[in-house]
Amino acid sequence: MAKKAIVLLSGGLDSVTCAAIARDEGFDVHALSFAYGQRHDIELSAAKRIVNAMAIKDHKIADIDLRLFGGSALTADVDVPKGRDDEAMASEIPITYVPARNTIFLSYALAYAEVSGAFDIFIGVNALDYSGYPDCRPDYIAAFQQMANLATKAGVTTNDQAYRIRTPLIDLTKAEIIAKGTALGVDYGMTISCYDPDEDGRACGVCDSCILRAKGFQGAGLADPTRYQPGAQP
Amino acid sequence: MAKKAIVLLSGGLDSVTCAAIARDEGFDVHALSFAYGQRHDIELSAAKRIVNAMAIKDHKIADIDLRLFGGSALTADVDVPKGRDDEAMASEIPITYVPARNTIFLSYALAYAEVSGAFDIFIGVNALDYSGYPDCRPDYIAAFQQMANLATKAGVTTNDQAYRIRTPLIDLTKAEIIAKGTALGVDYGMTISCYDPDEDGRACGVCDSCILRAKGFQGAGLADPTRYQPGAQP
Repeated sequence: MAKKAIVLLSGGLDSVTCAAIARDEGFDVHALSFAYGQRHDIELSAAKRIVNAMAIKDHKIADIDLRLFGGSALTADVDVPKGRDDEAMASEIPITYVPARNTIFLSYALAYAEVSGAFDIFIGVNALDYSGYPDCRPDYIAAFQQMANLATKAGVTTNDQAYRIRTPLIDLTKAEIIAKGTALGVDYGMTISCYDPDEDGRACGVCDSCILRAKGFQGAGLADPTRYQPGAQP
Repeated sequence: MAKKAIVLLSGGLDSVTCAAIARDEGFDVHALSFAYGQRHDIELSAAKRIVNAMAIKDHKIADIDLRLFGGSALTADVDVPKGRDDEAMASEIPITYVPARNTIFLSYALAYAEVSGAFDIFIGVNALDYSGYPDCRPDYIAAFQQMANLATKAGVTTNDQAYRIRTPLIDLTKAEIIAKGTALGVDYGMTISCYDPDEDGRACGVCDSCILRAKGFQGAGLADPTRYQPGAQP
């Protein structure tokens, strides 16, 4: 029987690449998505498309209301920044930062892992493209893993070496991520990265996430399969 | 203006003692409770009574459905163990253990802290009475704190020394906790500890939690204000 892995699946480009990598490593992928009051619920539709296309048998959607605390453009009623340059994106903690988001996501993944008997948790964090997010840094991931192994029954019984937080994208550029996923057969047309899509799920072309994504396809020398709003292709 | 603290408030004996200690230290207490598919929703009524009695102005209730993953007597449909002796309680990881529960709770508390500008998070974990729970151990708490300071904006800007996970009860016996709270004016009649209360919130007297609590009042030499089901007082 294949080893199990929990894969955090947002419906975006990075997380589907993680799922493809986990499967390529021989894992039985258990996907975990979140309905977290994000304005782009359309991501969840993308996550479901990916689950179907990859024939993933186990997919949990946790309903968590981060709007309870407010504090971010992605969950509160604040305008998403648009047209920022590379330097601004790389140097500032973006206002789209959601407080403790990855910590909450990974905590749920740990619960799911513990119940299902998985020991590998895949998360598509990336230190290069999103250096502004503190919870995408390798130090943070290492600290979470250490905490996870102290938090759990398995950690207690196996001398703190049970769980692994897997971040296969952490040092890759967006172009490298896209090249890797494409080699593994990922159809990125199913994914959505835009912070501000229209009701049909078409991308705006000007938010930070659209800009990074479009540059990624350009850098990988691959056609961009993203569905953009009319006239919005970057 | 008083410094803020987040206090995880379950409605039980330990958490109200934490709230009283935080207030006694001069903190403006922000309470955080969870509706987590527990069978004893009656705890939330107790939490609300405490919030009113202590005139706590900020109280958030996060709705998190841990039944999504199953795996514990407190969230799934499994019988709660009753009449266990001290040795069994202390040595085994109880089936009432909820996977990654404190990790999820503390993650939400971290989000609440980050948004509200609090840096102290109080949690009523106790290493003596619940040694069977891995996520009540000091090593776990220290690891969570380290992770929290790497996860957050404040951690990034203040050199990883911002957040403190405060566990004032961790080395106390139940009797010492009760004595401390009583000295701070806590009315434990408002609290509920029972894993299996009746619909009026009256305690069963025979679950692990009831037994520990009753022994605590006995050890502290104080009258037990718990409302028990008829004939159920231990």
